Amino acid sequence: MVRWEPGTRERLRAAALELFASRGFDETTAADIAARAGVTERTFFRHYADKRDVLFLGEDEFVGSFTAGIAAAPADATAMELVAAALRSGASYFADERRASSRDRQAVIEANGALLEREHHKAAALGEALGTALRTHGVAEPSATLAAQVCATVFHISFQQWIADGETRSLDEIERSVLADFATLSRA
Amino acid sequence: MVRWEPGTRERLRAAALELFASRGFDETTAADIAARAGVTERTFFRHYADKRDVLFLGEDEFVGSFTAGIAAAPADATAMELVAAALRSGASYFADERRASSRDRQAVIEANGALLEREHHKAAALGEALGTALRTHGVAEPSATLAAQVCATVFHISFQQWIADGETRSLDEIERSVLADFATLSRA
Repeated sequence: MVRWEPGTRERLRAAALELFASRGFDETTAADIAARAGVTERTFFRHYADKRDVLFLGEDEFVGSFTAGIAAAPADATAMELVAAALRSGASYFADERRASSRDRQAVIEANGALLEREHHKAAALGEALGTALRTHGVAEPSATLAAQVCATVFHISFQQWIADGETRSLDEIERSVLADFATLSRA
Repeated sequence: MVRWEPGTRERLRAAALELFASRGFDETTAADIAARAGVTERTFFRHYADKRDVLFLGEDEFVGSFTAGIAAAPADATAMELVAAALRSGASYFADERRASSRDRQAVIEANGALLEREHHKAAALGEALGTALRTHGVAEPSATLAAQVCATVFHISFQQWIADGETRSLDEIERSVLADFATLSRA
């Protein structure tokens, strides 16, 4: 029977982020991460497929946290109301206790071209999933794709602000402010 | 003295697109492309750094075709007017004689995960360059980033439509229609 020590996965993730930040992603091995977390390499591979997986695991859950908001919205919601619902719902994935580790993860990704390409791919996947959720909810094209990209963009701008030094507002609060800016912009 | 036969680069590109489509990108070598185009491998490498370069060369020119529209716009243009200017200017890069080869290129890219990641990276680069051009023109944040992403999204939706089977409208015409949909969406 495999024993799952509670918190092992999180400890491995914290160890990985520390090593990626100090040594660089390319210079860190799975064995290094396991050693730093005080577990065997085998234990590392029970939790993650490889070291990149530490940074990108949970992508379905991440995307699902947004699309769930659209699925749960009233049938007569407008496209922009669905965007707001997706943002509110997605913000629940980024509770304040996640802020420090999100900031560390972002710094690692921005320092590595290949990781950045992967992150852009993830951003594109979010946009596509939002488009699908909006079409399923009855929004026609091209409005569904436009609204999906507005939603993804508001999220990305807000997320960057959320992890900025000294920022204390919640992600939800920042998103409301960016959405208000968007309304002003598109009316001008 | 190196002789540049006019059209060699285009012939290599056409040969590459044919081979990528029929055999797959991974199964095609630079030597295959050169042979198909009736030139030496050395000639291939005078025109392209590698086979991926055939698909992604001209990225600066592509991005510059959009940002030039912003740079040339009146100082008092609104953010959405700058978006429209960038789209008009960018559309000039995609003249109708480019449509067939753009369609072939897209099919090759969508069939290959690594190329698709690279293409998403290129899309992100367009968005970032547009954001910089808008800020330089005096648009404040977060409006500059929002407007840049709206611009990139309207372009991508319109481009997909432009290369759709049976579509005959110019890219510029399609973009105007998508921008009008955007205005309706954001007012609702």
